[in-house]
Amino acid sequence: MTVDSAVLDDRSARAWLSVSVEPGMPAVAQLVEEVGAPEAVRALSAGRPVPDVRPGTDPDPASTAAAVLAAGAASGLRWLCPGDDEWPAGLGGLSHAGTLHRRGGVPYGLWVRGDHVLERVCRQAVAVVGARSSTSYGDDTAGDIAAGLGDAGVTVVSGAAYGIDAAAHRGALAVGGATVAVLACGADVVYPRGHDGLLARAVAAGSVVSEAPPGAHPAKVRFLARNRLIAAMTQVVVVVEAGWRSGALNTLAWGNRLHRSCVGVPGPVSSTASAGVHLALREHRAELVTGAAEVREALALIGTEPPDGVSAWNRGELRDTDGLGTEQLDVLEVLEVTTGMTVADVAGRTPLPRDAARQVLAMLAERSLVRCLDDGWRRAALPRGHDDRTLP
Amino acid sequence: MTVDSAVLDDRSARAWLSVSVEPGMPAVAQLVEEVGAPEAVRALSAGRPVPDVRPGTDPDPASTAAAVLAAGAASGLRWLCPGDDEWPAGLGGLSHAGTLHRRGGVPYGLWVRGDHVLERVCRQAVAVVGARSSTSYGDDTAGDIAAGLGDAGVTVVSGAAYGIDAAAHRGALAVGGATVAVLACGADVVYPRGHDGLLARAVAAGSVVSEAPPGAHPAKVRFLARNRLIAAMTQVVVVVEAGWRSGALNTLAWGNRLHRSCVGVPGPVSSTASAGVHLALREHRAELVTGAAEVREALALIGTEPPDGVSAWNRGELRDTDGLGTEQLDVLEVLEVTTGMTVADVAGRTPLPRDAARQVLAMLAERSLVRCLDDGWRRAALPRGHDDRTLP
Repeated sequence: MTVDSAVLDDRSARAWLSVSVEPGMPAVAQLVEEVGAPEAVRALSAGRPVPDVRPGTDPDPASTAAAVLAAGAASGLRWLCPGDDEWPAGLGGLSHAGTLHRRGGVPYGLWVRGDHVLERVCRQAVAVVGARSSTSYGDDTAGDIAAGLGDAGVTVVSGAAYGIDAAAHRGALAVGGATVAVLACGADVVYPRGHDGLLARAVAAGSVVSEAPPGAHPAKVRFLARNRLIAAMTQVVVVVEAGWRSGALNTLAWGNRLHRSCVGVPGPVSSTASAGVHLALREHRAELVTGAAEVREALALIGTEPPDGVSAWNRGELRDTDGLGTEQLDVLEVLEVTTGMTVADVAGRTPLPRDAARQVLAMLAERSLVRCLDDGWRRAALPRGHDDRTLP
Repeated sequence: MTVDSAVLDDRSARAWLSVSVEPGMPAVAQLVEEVGAPEAVRALSAGRPVPDVRPGTDPDPASTAAAVLAAGAASGLRWLCPGDDEWPAGLGGLSHAGTLHRRGGVPYGLWVRGDHVLERVCRQAVAVVGARSSTSYGDDTAGDIAAGLGDAGVTVVSGAAYGIDAAAHRGALAVGGATVAVLACGADVVYPRGHDGLLARAVAAGSVVSEAPPGAHPAKVRFLARNRLIAAMTQVVVVVEAGWRSGALNTLAWGNRLHRSCVGVPGPVSSTASAGVHLALREHRAELVTGAAEVREALALIGTEPPDGVSAWNRGELRDTDGLGTEQLDVLEVLEVTTGMTVADVAGRTPLPRDAARQVLAMLAERSLVRCLDDGWRRAALPRGHDDRTLP
């Protein structure tokens, strides 16, 4: 089927761009924003030079577009474009997020494998990214975090590499959570080969997406373009392990650019797999998190999740021993967090008579510093951090 | 020897306070600041009530003072007082640092074991504190950091507990560094018993100090008072491992109060021994550090160390690939950090002719992005963090 290029529609024009231009070329994205995709195709297919794009002409862009759309359909891919209901809102942020390594801009479109509505899948989504050369500590942690997010109905977005990416998908999938794999190759290409099962499960539970055309092979430079999509499609970017030179730090940098909430999981300082994360934490390019609950707090802080998941601690309702008197401090000191104690026990270990001990306990309970369980009074378990008076 | 209390000198008056009042009672410290030590002793020994101090009278404070000074001398302790040349300047900050757990104030004096000049020993000093129930990871890390500080001529200050305290002392002593052990018991008391050798070596290489009188046994409440001294005598407070309820967090809180540079070493998020540190890092009560070099940077930032130890990275001289052209990025991409490559190799793996490759390499070398070693051209090894373009 051949159509005159003069009447190439927006969707076909974007399909042409997908197959004719490398993903994430900012000059092309800018041209599309300025004159629209059809006009951009007209100019580019006629050989108009654009920075970083190899000159080349296409005498019949409509055929080219039709061919790629047919190839996508044949591979079971849908072609989503900006303006579609299903288009994830976050991708719009890329139009004013600048470039990193000369990649940037809103994607011309997304090839999607899977039947879920992508916009809905990404409405509460967290990127969990990290090193391919991860440690078992990193894999376990990424899996735990992803499982905690999946349990809470939060979508996990990552690449499809070995290491942290795979651990994140597996963790979320294991608890029935949704995941989105964003690929640097075609959405119909299985890369790495060993991840065919993983990708199939991601398709079933979420989506596999790419801006590269069907059949496109992974190329180094495409990972740089791909990383911006992972950050843009999510509200929080979590880096679990990343060496100093890990590509995950590029995803983190996109998260910073896009004003996403960026967080990082620390590890042993002796682990080179955590060195890049530690550097990012030191430079305040990411906040430290230790697990899924804290990632969900970051999500809640940006208003996409109700604050159910937020601990009293992080809502600022710190429980404080400042201002307590000697009797109250004495009682707190003898209580245990894990074992209950009767009022008589408490009185026996403090200078207080039993009645006074009971009154002090009631007062401390009002301040949530102690609680009464079946086996008696315990000190409350929540961390009280800076004002804790436990001693050697 | 009995002296009339009317003529008790400042030094004797302070010795009386040391033996008659618990360390770190803020009301007493305030009284001493207001009316001077001799007048404070006159009031207290006559039974004047002061908040948190048990009323009691001493008909002969001069004898009491003389006795404790004699006991100290017999135990080989020196009695340092504010105003002495040897008095560490940082302790003065405690006069306006408020209280934590109802402890605070400038110490009445310090009992010192060891011949080194304490003020000089503390002029470049870092507190390395942490949990008694440390892990081998924590011990190793504390030891490494202390060794790095000792190597750089920085004094390590800590308690004398098992775990991180001991690891810190050992690390510094192993490289011939100076350490100060600040005790909650008398400076002549060996506690814990197993640390007699460690304390003896600290005396030889630095000092063992305490505000508790000679022979005083460790009491829980004295650790709270003691912690403020560790923070006040140093410029940087490092917490290596601390559970949620670790006393090391009290030392950290004193560091915050005293506006010391407070830093923490992360660990595996699965380690409860690091939970308190992670919380402190999350709440920005401490900055993340991964080793001695970064602790020394914190020390340099507060102006007590020349910036020799500061990496180019932290001076803001980031090496950046932004602004590089395609040819330069192509060349960077083929180079390895650990293996050299000839110009011919580089040309062979890029579209560049050999002359152009040589020019590009020279240009990159000027920007310190590559370097030429015996085996050829390599990519520079320094971390470039957020703008790193290494790809999966």
